[in-house]
Amino acid sequence: MTPLTRIETPKPSSKIRVGVVGYGYWGPNLVRNFSEARDCQVVAVSDMRPERRALVESRYPSVVTTDDHRDLLNDPNVDAVAIATPVDTHYPIALDALRAGKHVWVEKPMTSNSEQGMRLIDEADRRNLVLHVDHTFVYGGAVRKIRELVSSGALGHIYYYDSVRVNLGLFQQDSNVIWDLAVHDLSIMDHLIDARPVAVSADGSCIAGYEHENIAYITVHFDTGFLAHFHVNWLAPVKIRHMLLGGTQRMLVFNDMEPSEKVLIYDKGIDLNLHVQDDHARQQILVSYRTGDMYAPRLDRTEALAGVVGEFARAIAGRRAPLTDAASGVRVVSLLEAAERSLRSEGRRMSL
Amino acid sequence: MTPLTRIETPKPSSKIRVGVVGYGYWGPNLVRNFSEARDCQVVAVSDMRPERRALVESRYPSVVTTDDHRDLLNDPNVDAVAIATPVDTHYPIALDALRAGKHVWVEKPMTSNSEQGMRLIDEADRRNLVLHVDHTFVYGGAVRKIRELVSSGALGHIYYYDSVRVNLGLFQQDSNVIWDLAVHDLSIMDHLIDARPVAVSADGSCIAGYEHENIAYITVHFDTGFLAHFHVNWLAPVKIRHMLLGGTQRMLVFNDMEPSEKVLIYDKGIDLNLHVQDDHARQQILVSYRTGDMYAPRLDRTEALAGVVGEFARAIAGRRAPLTDAASGVRVVSLLEAAERSLRSEGRRMSL
Amino acid sequence: MTPLTRIETPKPSSKIRVGVVGYGYWGPNLVRNFSEARDCQVVAVSDMRPERRALVESRYPSVVTTDDHRDLLNDPNVDAVAIATPVDTHYPIALDALRAGKHVWVEKPMTSNSEQGMRLIDEADRRNLVLHVDHTFVYGGAVRKIRELVSSGALGHIYYYDSVRVNLGLFQQDSNVIWDLAVHDLSIMDHLIDARPVAVSADGSCIAGYEHENIAYITVHFDTGFLAHFHVNWLAPVKIRHMLLGGTQRMLVFNDMEPSEKVLIYDKGIDLNLHVQDDHARQQILVSYRTGDMYAPRLDRTEALAGVVGEFARAIAGRRAPLTDAASGVRVVSLLEAAERSLRSEGRRMSL
Amino acid sequence: MTPLTRIETPKPSSKIRVGVVGYGYWGPNLVRNFSEARDCQVVAVSDMRPERRALVESRYPSVVTTDDHRDLLNDPNVDAVAIATPVDTHYPIALDALRAGKHVWVEKPMTSNSEQGMRLIDEADRRNLVLHVDHTFVYGGAVRKIRELVSSGALGHIYYYDSVRVNLGLFQQDSNVIWDLAVHDLSIMDHLIDARPVAVSADGSCIAGYEHENIAYITVHFDTGFLAHFHVNWLAPVKIRHMLLGGTQRMLVFNDMEPSEKVLIYDKGIDLNLHVQDDHARQQILVSYRTGDMYAPRLDRTEALAGVVGEFARAIAGRRAPLTDAASGVRVVSLLEAAERSLRSEGRRMSL
Repeated sequence: MTPLTRIETPKPSSKIRVGVVGYGYWGPNLVRNFSEARDCQVVAVSDMRPERRALVESRYPSVVTTDDHRDLLNDPNVDAVAIATPVDTHYPIALDALRAGKHVWVEKPMTSNSEQGMRLIDEADRRNLVLHVDHTFVYGGAVRKIRELVSSGALGHIYYYDSVRVNLGLFQQDSNVIWDLAVHDLSIMDHLIDARPVAVSADGSCIAGYEHENIAYITVHFDTGFLAHFHVNWLAPVKIRHMLLGGTQRMLVFNDMEPSEKVLIYDKGIDLNLHVQDDHARQQILVSYRTGDMYAPRLDRTEALAGVVGEFARAIAGRRAPLTDAASGVRVVSLLEAAERSLRSEGRRMSL
Repeated sequence: MTPLTRIETPKPSSKIRVGVVGYGYWGPNLVRNFSEARDCQVVAVSDMRPERRALVESRYPSVVTTDDHRDLLNDPNVDAVAIATPVDTHYPIALDALRAGKHVWVEKPMTSNSEQGMRLIDEADRRNLVLHVDHTFVYGGAVRKIRELVSSGALGHIYYYDSVRVNLGLFQQDSNVIWDLAVHDLSIMDHLIDARPVAVSADGSCIAGYEHENIAYITVHFDTGFLAHFHVNWLAPVKIRHMLLGGTQRMLVFNDMEPSEKVLIYDKGIDLNLHVQDDHARQQILVSYRTGDMYAPRLDRTEALAGVVGEFARAIAGRRAPLTDAASGVRVVSLLEAAERSLRSEGRRMSL
Repeated sequence: MTPLTRIETPKPSSKIRVGVVGYGYWGPNLVRNFSEARDCQVVAVSDMRPERRALVESRYPSVVTTDDHRDLLNDPNVDAVAIATPVDTHYPIALDALRAGKHVWVEKPMTSNSEQGMRLIDEADRRNLVLHVDHTFVYGGAVRKIRELVSSGALGHIYYYDSVRVNLGLFQQDSNVIWDLAVHDLSIMDHLIDARPVAVSADGSCIAGYEHENIAYITVHFDTGFLAHFHVNWLAPVKIRHMLLGGTQRMLVFNDMEPSEKVLIYDKGIDLNLHVQDDHARQQILVSYRTGDMYAPRLDRTEALAGVVGEFARAIAGRRAPLTDAASGVRVVSLLEAAERSLRSEGRRMSL
Repeated sequence: MTPLTRIETPKPSSKIRVGVVGYGYWGPNLVRNFSEARDCQVVAVSDMRPERRALVESRYPSVVTTDDHRDLLNDPNVDAVAIATPVDTHYPIALDALRAGKHVWVEKPMTSNSEQGMRLIDEADRRNLVLHVDHTFVYGGAVRKIRELVSSGALGHIYYYDSVRVNLGLFQQDSNVIWDLAVHDLSIMDHLIDARPVAVSADGSCIAGYEHENIAYITVHFDTGFLAHFHVNWLAPVKIRHMLLGGTQRMLVFNDMEPSEKVLIYDKGIDLNLHVQDDHARQQILVSYRTGDMYAPRLDRTEALAGVVGEFARAIAGRRAPLTDAASGVRVVSLLEAAERSLRSEGRRMSL
């Protein structure tokens, strides 16, 4: 562990000085967004691979690099640490960072299991530090608009939730498609739906001789009887990002592959009327179908990750929990854990 | 039961004289297709509702109508009976028809349970009569082309099967969405996939206060480990008829809502290679992605039901089992029964 | 000319008794819609081809058929005559029908030239008879909704009109693609746009060695400087029915190939601001772009032709001009004539 | 004009040292692609605006910047000059650059008029320098595949060419939509079609009170009778990039808005047969329609501009004309000039 040979960065009035751990697939997006944010600056990046560090150096000459993330934790110039490493390293790095007094940003999924997540919450609470999970999609224009529609009652009472996220690749070496793709959808659901999930079942398949599931179906059961269902697949010939949300007042389609009209709201639904038939005095339920206009609200097109960065900065400034706090991170990991247990138990329904 | 007051229809050399039981939603399509077929003619239609019989009379002045289907069974001018009544009446009517020496066409689902289906098979076999199930989609240009691709090995070994059939309504009074919509998809799967299903699990929800499930997810497990999954929903704001079929050689999308290019075949896939890493001698699986051309074969656009009628006529002429024979009808009913059992058992996997 | 051997049809209180001339491609739709209309009934159909008459007889046993349309004109039981024959026969048949005191329905295009159309107007006016042109699309849910949006000012001042109608076939023997396809679009434009067209230019090509143009582009120039443009093509691999309508307040896409959301209204536009640059005191126009929600109004799905029939019946009952009166028919024929003249004159702009 | 205060860049064996004039909308793409190319390096960038130069400096610390493009022309370290300035400055800068012995890359449209283009060709020829026009789309995977299909005869003899390029904005201050958008489509057509255009007609409209045409239609007439047609529009609510190409053997749709299957090839067409009718011995042309499979070839997804850069480098290395040479630039400018003349002459057909 070499000391960082760097001239002390003078602390600017309000900029949060961030150290980023891991410059692999997602790290570059973090560094770019932190760099472009008004309230943040990237002071250091760690990555064990020399070629990744070289890339940082060429792109950001003023950012210090190191092969050891502990250099960041020990650096008094670092206010916050963003962790974008493989999921099984999230817990130890985040724990060390909190113990070093840093605010922490963790990539999704937050930890390998919910117990680790709880311990991190304890540690952050004790030290009054911000612990923030990067559930990126929650900050996108589409999901924010849908949340607004759900909250305002525009959809009415929600009937069901159906989500499909499939494409060809990229196979992960260390996890299955649930931990890789469903984590996005479960974090969106966690944000949109106020009811409490009580059980999870999942089926999946390790096809093409792969060691992890590359296709899976997850059902989340809620205390209200509400069902949410997720299809995730690394082996689909087409890229589908599609969500259906049915409500008593309106129904919604979220198609993230559409370049502009991603959220379509249908003024459609049914009305059930109890009806007594003349001839046999039998009761019959009459279903009438209601179809009205469709509309597609304009969506904010700001990059979602810029919103995540802004929320992190504001949470630190205000010493408050961020929108996607550690509790949401743990809830999502609990759903993933339960889905995993169900996968290993012939798809049986697992209580949360 | 009134005798049919009709001048005997002279039996033409080869035309099969059909009596149709039930002129509700599907019956009119049967009568029209039998009328237009070269080898068939409709001689009588029964329906208990006077207004439905009046409709037959105005459209087909030469066809005799009756309010009692037994008139058809007793009529020596009727060679075959087509049953398009509610599913719980299929068994008694079909049994009586077979006993009266008629060839029988039954709508899907064939019977309310598989035991009834087996008894019908026994009865038909004993009497050397054709017993035929109207799994209409099996005869459509799209499914026939897909079957051809599967059989020829163009897709390679099949990886997975994913099917979505959702729209707004029509709610059925006497059954749930599985018996109404999934019956189509299960009969398509039964036709396309040669492996043997061994278990079924299903989750669903009776939303909007409806007494039957109006949304459901079904997973069919095969002896080879293969998974097929079905989403059926009566409460979706958009009509989706979408199927994904992944194979080792090619992948396929069947979108029945497309006006012409319904079946798209993607020359896409993955290759897994075992790879020994230099540094730690750890084994790693390298996944490489293959993407080539896409093509959409021209499909026969003949109405599927005309094909079903033709097959029924040829099976009678040749005294052979039709393509969609009673055995396929029973297999599909067994899948529906198992799905229903699973729905009633917290989604547990039910053996077939 | 044989007399119609028919028992006199007793004249019902209000039903208009229609004779249909021509049972080719469109005639069957006329007969069906007149038959199903509350206020009309078809009493006779004429067609020179025996096999077409046989078809009428099998479908409508109570309708009298004849090979000579003059039988219809001479029949006192016929109140109105609908003419669905080749366009060059419209004028003589319509003239004879008016002279025989019948109300007249003519298919589009109304006549082979505008002079014929004017003469028919004179004849109808003199006899106080209804002369009606079947510009079917004007009565469709989509065009009626667009007319409503234009009239209410929801689109603002209309900027431009762009229409594409292309597909593979059907080549007409006796006319080019302008008289076959553009007639639809010009009649829609005539209905939607209140400004006055003053000139037309057209380019086209007789490809594949065909004697008539099978691809053409038409530009209609208005007194306000407004441009409307039309692309019609019998040789396109895909079927496109697409219209763009730009206005100061909103913009509209009409895609008739969409099964349900055919009309999309975009709250989009531009604002121009004159701006004086600081440095050189040069004026600059600043364009700002406005993008808001999109919405798709629910459309009436009633068959358009049923609406045409209803309007014809009401016009006869009220002795008033129908929505698509002979004047609109002549305006559309004038546009077609001018386009044809331009085609023969190297695409030069022809005044109307 | 300040001398460039820079240490001499040692000339690497084969790298072409490029100076880029203009760092506005397109310049950054040029600098990025030249920087990433194996055979090129950017040594200097000129732009009159200090904030644009600052941007270059922050992104490319090793690149020298200047406010005067003449510094680049005088710099012996610059082998080639790429000009990405407003179109009316292309000619003087390119002429000076050639006179200074530099190879020249000019953005599209090459010059304000074809005479200027001819003079540049003379100058480049005299000095044996490469003069290259950046018709970017010609190097994209889609257009290269279409060219391959046209050249191989897969489409047969080409019937027609129809192109639509519309969207909302960006209005240009100094030119109309023809010089801004149609230049792309005319350069694609110039590349794809071997026949010789002989005349051009155009109609357009200056809507929303704008001083330049923001919507236009162009027809290009060929010596073979072949027609190509172009619709360009800055005021459309939706972005359309759509091309139809009909041939005797196959037909093609190029939809550049599709994320992956951009080029669809339809095995569709017609056959005309002369037919002598029995009854009147009249000749009739029978048209039969042929419909077969559709396929979408895999396209090279390399950024088109990287291909342009590669071709420029290879042309310099080989002292040969590039694929998009100055002659193609002049041909495209001639088409734009003729379209402009037609716009000013009531849409009359202008000979080339």
